[in-house]
Amino acid sequence: MLTLDKVYHAAYVLKDVVRKTALIASPKINPDCKLYLKTENLQVTGSFKVRGAGYKISQLSDEEKARGVIACSAGNHAQGVALAAQKYGIKSVICLPDGAPISKVEATKSYGAEVVMVPGVYDDAYNRALELRDEEGYSFVHPFDDEDVIAGQGTIGLEIIDELDDVDAVVVPIGGGGLISGIAYTLKHLKPSVKVYGVQAMGAPSMYNSVKNGKKERLSGVSTIADGIAVKEPGDNTFSLVSKYVDEIVTVSEDEISSAILALIEQHKLIAEGAGAVSVAAVMFDKIPAKGKKVVAVVSGGNIDVTILSRVIKRGLLTSGRNCTLCIELMDKPGQLQQVSSIIASLGGNVTSVHHERASETTDINGCFLRLVLETRNYDHIKEITAALTAAGFKLV
Amino acid sequence: MLTLDKVYHAAYVLKDVVRKTALIASPKINPDCKLYLKTENLQVTGSFKVRGAGYKISQLSDEEKARGVIACSAGNHAQGVALAAQKYGIKSVICLPDGAPISKVEATKSYGAEVVMVPGVYDDAYNRALELRDEEGYSFVHPFDDEDVIAGQGTIGLEIIDELDDVDAVVVPIGGGGLISGIAYTLKHLKPSVKVYGVQAMGAPSMYNSVKNGKKERLSGVSTIADGIAVKEPGDNTFSLVSKYVDEIVTVSEDEISSAILALIEQHKLIAEGAGAVSVAAVMFDKIPAKGKKVVAVVSGGNIDVTILSRVIKRGLLTSGRNCTLCIELMDKPGQLQQVSSIIASLGGNVTSVHHERASETTDINGCFLRLVLETRNYDHIKEITAALTAAGFKLV
Repeated sequence: MLTLDKVYHAAYVLKDVVRKTALIASPKINPDCKLYLKTENLQVTGSFKVRGAGYKISQLSDEEKARGVIACSAGNHAQGVALAAQKYGIKSVICLPDGAPISKVEATKSYGAEVVMVPGVYDDAYNRALELRDEEGYSFVHPFDDEDVIAGQGTIGLEIIDELDDVDAVVVPIGGGGLISGIAYTLKHLKPSVKVYGVQAMGAPSMYNSVKNGKKERLSGVSTIADGIAVKEPGDNTFSLVSKYVDEIVTVSEDEISSAILALIEQHKLIAEGAGAVSVAAVMFDKIPAKGKKVVAVVSGGNIDVTILSRVIKRGLLTSGRNCTLCIELMDKPGQLQQVSSIIASLGGNVTSVHHERASETTDINGCFLRLVLETRNYDHIKEITAALTAAGFKLV
Repeated sequence: MLTLDKVYHAAYVLKDVVRKTALIASPKINPDCKLYLKTENLQVTGSFKVRGAGYKISQLSDEEKARGVIACSAGNHAQGVALAAQKYGIKSVICLPDGAPISKVEATKSYGAEVVMVPGVYDDAYNRALELRDEEGYSFVHPFDDEDVIAGQGTIGLEIIDELDDVDAVVVPIGGGGLISGIAYTLKHLKPSVKVYGVQAMGAPSMYNSVKNGKKERLSGVSTIADGIAVKEPGDNTFSLVSKYVDEIVTVSEDEISSAILALIEQHKLIAEGAGAVSVAAVMFDKIPAKGKKVVAVVSGGNIDVTILSRVIKRGLLTSGRNCTLCIELMDKPGQLQQVSSIIASLGGNVTSVHHERASETTDINGCFLRLVLETRNYDHIKEITAALTAAGFKLV
């Protein structure tokens, strides 16, 4: 059974396995509140998962340890289990669906795990892991629906209270619900006045729907860049703990997640993965009542594929009005490009790309198009520039 | 005069202005040594500069404080001065060359500085700052060649020794030399056995050349993505301190810097700017004798433009063999694409982009080109794939 003592025990057991991650003040994400980031992206393995996996493994019997552990995951849980097993000197086997990104496979291997690539999707890898458990006598480490795992994640709640005892609210990403179950259970027992808010991606609202409808529901599909919390169905334990201890669950869009990732890069030099940034997105876009409060957003992980990161950066720049593309119809006569350039320059826009194209079928025979990419300050700045161009007689298409 | 007491005084004065940044173990950058990162990219304003600027400003007389300070910088120094002035409640004016990136101008303004855009390049902005100093009676805060500034940066040396008293070597980026002067002075007085290594970009080796030739030299030009250390000439103070206290200066290439930035993102979820990553690059590419040693690399800052960051990520993936483009000449007959795909898949390569192109003038009338972008593990993996394709009769062009 989950108890507060178990969480304290986990904190004691884990002290040589995990880092006490920094709580970093974040004054600009939402100036209406005092926001702090609990930086579990700086945790060993790049996510909080090693806490739960570490405590789970520590509680196995010597006989179980001798046989080793097995888990199924293409991401943070795999690395958490692999590192925790390495620290305790036991064997770990990780089943991965064969489409898993090379970078995650390599990272898992680098922590000493034996990797089994299973043809198919996550569910196939999961089933293979259960088969191997039965065949080989491994202990299965569930990614979230396990009381020892939940107790391990709860140690984050202890660290938050230790460092910021007058915290008003804590905002936590939800996938399967193990992280928020541990944190909410711990906080509500230590200081019931603290509000605990959960955040899911709009494209994967399994816990949100389940709690709203009062019963565990399974999504037919999930779609979000926050792959770490793209979970189709809550666990039994986590559904009941979240229903009892979490004050509210909110959802954030893909663009909100991208903007939060970008804000963490620019303001804090921190890489968060999509799942890790949803808590920050919720505060940034006023999804929770934060005004005047001391709020902690748990940045749960930073394992984002770098190619996805590039795309997120581009998207974040666009959606925050920091980058825009203008397509301007020009008459093909001298001086037009010069005039456009000088209008943009006088308003402080920075041209980063120019594409100039002669008449196509759809335009006047003497016409041409100018496609410009600009660095801008924000949406108002873009409006200011387009208004000035229109006023000077240019046609924006 | 610079003294150890001044550094201690700076640490005392700065305790409410700057963060004591985390020292993070980094086991994988170079497995031959025990590496730690001093994460000044997580410092307020995203770089160490606020330390020197803060101490400098704190030491002004009340009369000087009442008139305010002026500085010239397009980057970290501007933000450091602006924030430090804000903390002490005094006016700051920052001269910027008018080509400075919008993001840096906005960041400087956000800390409350008055920004003066000066037509021209850095030297023009610098001269305008000196004029304004004379006209308005502002105190000029030099970015590096000032003993109070150097003492402020030296507080990083104290923090390193405090946390890791058996450190063997400290690796520090060099631009103008203020950071390494402060750190080297402090460490060599507290523990003379600690080696201090400086690192410059190959495209801006002003201190490297000057020390090698025994006299201050000025470069005619500088070219590097590490814009924070693209300094043409050392200062008088910093040249003499570096000559006396620094054991060796090494240089790193642009590709080495990109690889280090990428490694910090993937292994530590940390954003470093080019200047901040040169120290890590030096350890990663065996530029300094690190084997078996406890080494601290100072990651001096994280203020990298996000569009440059995207380019650096792409370059880093390419130069570490994690991404490659193959162009294959095919006969235009059924089954060829399938055969290529299955060879690549069987070896664990992940195709991320396919471009298929019919014969052009240079090819056989029945030929076509297949351009593939792959995610790969490393160079050996690429070789393995190209060898298998060649063995199967495909022609790589």
